[in-house]
Amino acid sequence: MIKDQPIERRCIAVLVDNEPGVLARVIGLFSGRGYNIESLTVTEVDPQKHTSRITIVTQGTAQVIEQIKTQLDRLVPVQKVVDMTEEHDAIERELALVKVKGSGERRVEALRLSDAFRASVIDTTHQSFVFELTGSPSKLDAFINLMRPLGLVDVSRTGVVAIARGSEGM
Amino acid sequence: MIKDQPIERRCIAVLVDNEPGVLARVIGLFSGRGYNIESLTVTEVDPQKHTSRITIVTQGTAQVIEQIKTQLDRLVPVQKVVDMTEEHDAIERELALVKVKGSGERRVEALRLSDAFRASVIDTTHQSFVFELTGSPSKLDAFINLMRPLGLVDVSRTGVVAIARGSEGM
Repeated sequence: MIKDQPIERRCIAVLVDNEPGVLARVIGLFSGRGYNIESLTVTEVDPQKHTSRITIVTQGTAQVIEQIKTQLDRLVPVQKVVDMTEEHDAIERELALVKVKGSGERRVEALRLSDAFRASVIDTTHQSFVFELTGSPSKLDAFINLMRPLGLVDVSRTGVVAIARGSEGM
Repeated sequence: MIKDQPIERRCIAVLVDNEPGVLARVIGLFSGRGYNIESLTVTEVDPQKHTSRITIVTQGTAQVIEQIKTQLDRLVPVQKVVDMTEEHDAIERELALVKVKGSGERRVEALRLSDAFRASVIDTTHQSFVFELTGSPSKLDAFINLMRPLGLVDVSRTGVVAIARGSEGM
């Protein structure tokens, strides 16, 4: 009997040459093979070298994750593929902007909770707040779920970025 | 004589059904037509309705931007396309993790600057700091450029997310 491999969650950082179509190729690799993308972010990190950094959170068996990394490594504009979860004791962070609309006790409670989560108010009207919050994805989930019954209007999240602990680069 | 249209920078939010391949189709639309992607983030924002929110920062003439929005709107899994820059007086935010390694006066200066930018230290060794910083893309650029001569080791940025000012949703 073949035992099912457990599904693992991995955060993968990919350094690429910032040229047209590279993001489409990286994503095509995932969608073409049915690999899951939980979140994805991409920005230029070195304008002089035209290097962009893509951070992908994916889920799969250990075997699927190895396949993903090997195939990413084979793409020509890819400089480096790093499994931040496996190779580094990485710190993961995400940012959320959360709009809540309500009055009376609900408004007071929203502000109270934002204080407990160390969120900051970056916009306000007499009826609403926009909170800015950073943390692990699960902390952001918890905050958003607490805000739902208080009048959640809108949520915008960045997805995860990661950096290795310690003094070395990736 | 035809006058050149000026290049504009726009932040576009796209609500989509979170189904396989939707991100590939959205990005394919950009890369296939040579449209520029400055940054892109995607995360699930409503697990019950399986809705994901994609935030794209792009540059182009007003005409190209109208084309992009029209074509995004035509994709089947797309629920809504909102030009956060044009339709809303949107607040844009981004998160960066920045690792700096140095000693002596350079280390002191890095900490001093992080204080001025209200960055927080989320990891440290005797030689290094990892700073977490949120703000506009230009604030993050400024911080990273100041850190370069002090021993910049690694940068990971989320790209921009945006939310409308005021009490209404997008």
